[in-house]
Amino acid sequence: MALGIGPLNPPKRILMGPGPVMVEPRVYEALRQPIVSHVDPYFFQIFEDIRALLGPVFGTQNPFRMVISGTGTSGMETALVNFVEPGMKLAVFANGYFCDRISNIGERQGAVVVRLEKPWGETFSEEEAREFVLREKPHVVAFVQAETSTGVYTPGKAISAAAREVDALVIGDCVTSLGGMPVNVDENGIDVAYSCSQKGLSCPPGLAPITCSPRAMERLRERRRPVPSFYFDLKLIDDYYEGQHRYHHTAPISMFYALREALRIIDEEGLENRFRRHRLNHLAFVAGIEAMGLQMHVREPEQRLWTLNTPRVPEGISDAALRRRLLDEYAIEVLGGFGPLAGKVLRVGLMGASSTRENVLLLLEALERALRAEGFPVKASGREAAESFYAAAAA
Amino acid sequence: MALGIGPLNPPKRILMGPGPVMVEPRVYEALRQPIVSHVDPYFFQIFEDIRALLGPVFGTQNPFRMVISGTGTSGMETALVNFVEPGMKLAVFANGYFCDRISNIGERQGAVVVRLEKPWGETFSEEEAREFVLREKPHVVAFVQAETSTGVYTPGKAISAAAREVDALVIGDCVTSLGGMPVNVDENGIDVAYSCSQKGLSCPPGLAPITCSPRAMERLRERRRPVPSFYFDLKLIDDYYEGQHRYHHTAPISMFYALREALRIIDEEGLENRFRRHRLNHLAFVAGIEAMGLQMHVREPEQRLWTLNTPRVPEGISDAALRRRLLDEYAIEVLGGFGPLAGKVLRVGLMGASSTRENVLLLLEALERALRAEGFPVKASGREAAESFYAAAAA
Repeated sequence: MALGIGPLNPPKRILMGPGPVMVEPRVYEALRQPIVSHVDPYFFQIFEDIRALLGPVFGTQNPFRMVISGTGTSGMETALVNFVEPGMKLAVFANGYFCDRISNIGERQGAVVVRLEKPWGETFSEEEAREFVLREKPHVVAFVQAETSTGVYTPGKAISAAAREVDALVIGDCVTSLGGMPVNVDENGIDVAYSCSQKGLSCPPGLAPITCSPRAMERLRERRRPVPSFYFDLKLIDDYYEGQHRYHHTAPISMFYALREALRIIDEEGLENRFRRHRLNHLAFVAGIEAMGLQMHVREPEQRLWTLNTPRVPEGISDAALRRRLLDEYAIEVLGGFGPLAGKVLRVGLMGASSTRENVLLLLEALERALRAEGFPVKASGREAAESFYAAAAA
Repeated sequence: MALGIGPLNPPKRILMGPGPVMVEPRVYEALRQPIVSHVDPYFFQIFEDIRALLGPVFGTQNPFRMVISGTGTSGMETALVNFVEPGMKLAVFANGYFCDRISNIGERQGAVVVRLEKPWGETFSEEEAREFVLREKPHVVAFVQAETSTGVYTPGKAISAAAREVDALVIGDCVTSLGGMPVNVDENGIDVAYSCSQKGLSCPPGLAPITCSPRAMERLRERRRPVPSFYFDLKLIDDYYEGQHRYHHTAPISMFYALREALRIIDEEGLENRFRRHRLNHLAFVAGIEAMGLQMHVREPEQRLWTLNTPRVPEGISDAALRRRLLDEYAIEVLGGFGPLAGKVLRVGLMGASSTRENVLLLLEALERALRAEGFPVKASGREAAESFYAAAAA
């Protein structure tokens, strides 16, 4: 034992940041089941189960539903490297950090990136979306349905409708919506939708579910230039999971076990129940925040994500100090803002197993203590306001 | 429970294929420990532990030791997208499937790929290596230290020496050597070495350790053209794990827990002991194979991998039938050959937790039964020959 590195002993956190979030014991149990190999018939059955379970969660009938062996960002990269070719015009709806990341990866593909900019925390009207897309006539349009950096929800229907008018393909980032609120891939007209495992699906990080419409698959078949990535080449990945199971890479078996279990939990809860739970806990949290005299960064209630909440940090209060108190005194992790929102918001995840009444109440209590300790004149008890909200909602 | 997909219930396999291989219970226990987030100080400590533990296993003093959040192939892609630019000449030592994969990814980068071909199962003499590299004067040289498709070992020292004469960077694929036999990155002069988690390290698949020499890091700093991949951009990955921990992606925490535990097990066993064990079990297996009247595909004993053994399937015997019997009667998984070796070899992994005397004896017994059942006139008991070998080695 030359290096003498001690046993693993992770601290127990209450994960209420933008993800990863809490993981159910059942999912941890799945993680430690004995692996089979990546060419075992049992593994392909696991994959088929996941494919079946992903359909309702994505809200799609697309036969093409895959899982990329990487994190959410690998899902984004997969979408872009397969569908954006050098010289193509990529129109990005730019209202947060992950829109910037899409632009960045698009540029790395040699695309001509054009952007419609909005301040972080706002989204796009139907008219703005249509005007931009019709003016630019891009090959591909990309937007972020659930902006993890701002807390804004953009379902995407208006964007997709405009994109169809100019025959553009639509890429939608569903990283922070999948499993926690309606993604509705088909209804919203999203051609390529990707997500991650560690947010609304409440699984540890490491996998990126993705689905492509028949329209997107046709584009892929017509593509002549090789995809610059071998690892993210969707045709090769499809050849591995389908039919002859032609070897492409050694899928992370344990993570697939975990994802399957996380999706089974969703199936058992039922999507409508799950969405109702997420919405209820989000609204209770907002009631508590506003009662304390804080504001939500996203002004319009219907534009707020249920999964990721961005209360504004009051003037003169340090977000880092608040977060330090939450972590030290309550073992609660929430994250701060970054970019234009650095120091201005907290990012509070209420998704998957983290979206519970107990967590909402505990966090509001903890936040109230932290705010008072930092000298903020809390107007009223956030916890009590949330409790009243829950009582009223139950009545 | 709309879809009614049942509980996870994986079959128990004895994994003796090219990987994934058996995983120690301690590693499974690590997998199910409660996660922290990807920005938690505890996670970065886990990463530092892994970095420390990777040094001896790679045989390197390189400060740059990272883990890519993907499988072994993502390690290969990371090496190529960062160090091979459009128009560069990439010289590939081509003696197996993974060399072809390197060529393929190199071409996707727009490199001019030149190859020195050898039949699958052979490797390159010092003179051949030097002549090729000096003639081609490439920017980057790539070779596979442990060819999983053929069972051939190419340490790489001669290749690297030649590459230095023409100032070429050396990429070495160590996917099937790391943790099971000497990789010796520094001694062999490999500038960029990558591997996977599910072979010699005996961890489930999902991560790709990588190390780069100071010389490679200098090339990276000098690179002007953006890396086409964001996900595999080593500068950004380095910014995440180092210093300011600038967010890049949400690392698969549970897999990092598992990798750390797998590396601790190696540290406890001691590398020399581990290599001795792998070599012993490999030699015992070969003794058994030859006693039965079979041949090893790799002719020269010193060119054989200890980790991945390729006995030839006798004329007229179906490798699929043999493998089916091993799986059905003994729950043992070994894989067959592919490409030019389809139907001609078995690929038997004796690595990590799969490299045990018990596994060697059980497999030889199972193989003997399967060969007899398929009509092959087995010359003598492979199991007994291996037992004699072990006895002699212990004497």
